[in-house]
Order: sequence, then C-alpha cells, then structure tokens
Amino acid sequence: MTDGTCVFCAIVRGQEAASIVYVDETVVAFMDRFPVTRGHLLVVPRAHAVGLEDLDAADGVRVWETGRELARALRRSGIPCDGINLLLCDGEAANQSVFHVHLHVIPRTAGDGWSDLTHHAPERERALLDADAEVIRRALAMDRG
Amino acid sequence: MTDGTCVFCAIVRGQEAASIVYVDETVVAFMDRFPVTRGHLLVVPRAHAVGLEDLDAADGVRVWETGRELARALRRSGIPCDGINLLLCDGEAANQSVFHVHLHVIPRTAGDGWSDLTHHAPERERALLDADAEVIRRALAMDRG
Repeated sequence: MTDGTCVFCAIVRGQEAASIVYVDETVVAFMDRFPVTRGHLLVVPRAHAVGLEDLDAADGVRVWETGRELARALRRSGIPCDGINLLLCDGEAANQSVFHVHLHVIPRTAGDGWSDLTHHAPERERALLDADAEVIRRALAMDRG
Repeated sequence: MTDGTCVFCAIVRGQEAASIVYVDETVVAFMDRFPVTRGHLLVVPRAHAVGLEDLDAADGVRVWETGRELARALRRSGIPCDGINLLLCDGEAANQSVFHVHLHVIPRTAGDGWSDLTHHAPERERALLDADAEVIRRALAMDRG
C-alpha cells in the first residue's frame, strides 16, 4: 500500500526523518519541513494515494477529522495561533508538490505574511454564476449516475 | 439552528440569492459571488457554526465529503480545472470573512494567477521541528483527556 519512491510513504514506514505529532492505523501527522508559519502540520493517509480522486473515502474522512483535532490542539499549544487554515492542494495546477495526498494545517496570526488568501476578486454577475452552477450540477448528476 | 444576521444562513433558508449547486439535509453548496477562479464553490453546513470549534463532527464530515464530490464534478464539468484547492479559513487571522464555517472548492489551472500557495519558506531545523511537535503532542494529549 506504500510507494517505494514516495517521501511521505517513507515517513509512514519510519524510513525518513520526520517530527511526528500523531499516528493511528489510518493516518500520520508530522511537521512540514518548510513551514509557512511555525506549527505548520501535514496529515497524510498511510495508504498511498496521489490525490482526491484515488483517496479512499474512509481514509479521507480520517484525514479531515485529524486535521480538525490538530487545529484544536494548535490553538491550545502555546504556538502563536489566532486562526487556522486547512488546505489541500490536489494537482500540480493547485500547487501540489508531493504526490501523496496531504492536508495542510496552518496556524495563523494577524500579519504573519503568509499567502494573501483574501485576494480581492471582482463580483461575478448572477447570470454567469447561475450558468456555472448549472454545468457543475450536470456534471454532479452524471457522476452520481 | 440558523442565525438571523448571517448571510449564509439566509442562503440556507432561501432568503438570499445564491446560485445553488447542491443541497441535502446537512449541507448547501453554492457559487462564491466573488470567485477567485471560475467555478469557485462554497460548501456550508445548514446549522450555523462560526468555525471549526463549534462545528458538529458529523456536519463537518458531510462538508468534507461534499467538497470531494464537487471537486470531482468540477474536473468533469468542462469548466477549466486541472487541479483543485480545498481551503477552510478558520478565524479572521486565517482570512475568514463570513463567520459561518465554509469550505472553499477552487478549480485551478496553471498560471491562473490565484494566491501563491507555494510561498517558498526556508527549511526549519529538525531540532526546532521536534520541539514544535512536542508542544502540539502535549496539547493534543490534554485535549483527549
């Protein structure tokens, strides 16, 4: 279930150094080596999956739940943390760089200088939003058979 | 279960315009009015919760699962989408602007110009990462009683 060339699989197997925060039978959580803020964590499923499309549903739920538990712990840890971002990057176009699915848990403080997620986008016309919604609903319906 | 002053609660009640993509008994998903890319969606629980700390566990799982289903639909919709970001902003310091918890589902294409999530951070020394892991593990253990 692990991939011999994947660095996160090597961490899961204990063959690559990592500062582990939490393990259970489904997931492993450890410090990001290149933290965007102090306390930046990653949660990964033990079973290798590249992204959202091949991630087992139950593993995904455990990744999410672990992210929530770690967010709560970060807020109580003493590490500076006034807010939390949960972020998943699925695919290179979405800034995924290690191709073993992982959830970032990022403690935030005002003015910490991390990415400008607010990015002031212009309002989109209702008619265009309605048209977007329609094509997504159609894809969703096809998917559900 | 809804909050009279909350715009997302008003959408859930059908009292505020929104381009709805999906509804079930637990969640509602609709187009972001200020999309950072075309197809940018929000998933919210019907029951008002400000953030991760007061979000019901089962509602949270349904938000996550809906995010995954919508990511899959976006990739098949014809809307430009080579990757997906799932993003949750918990607290003002984490760029939350509407205080009803919501998961962003953001279709990405190379060079779409959205936030620089890669943000090249320096490597943190292993000893410091280990110390960070230790304080978070302690907070997690306290939390679990």
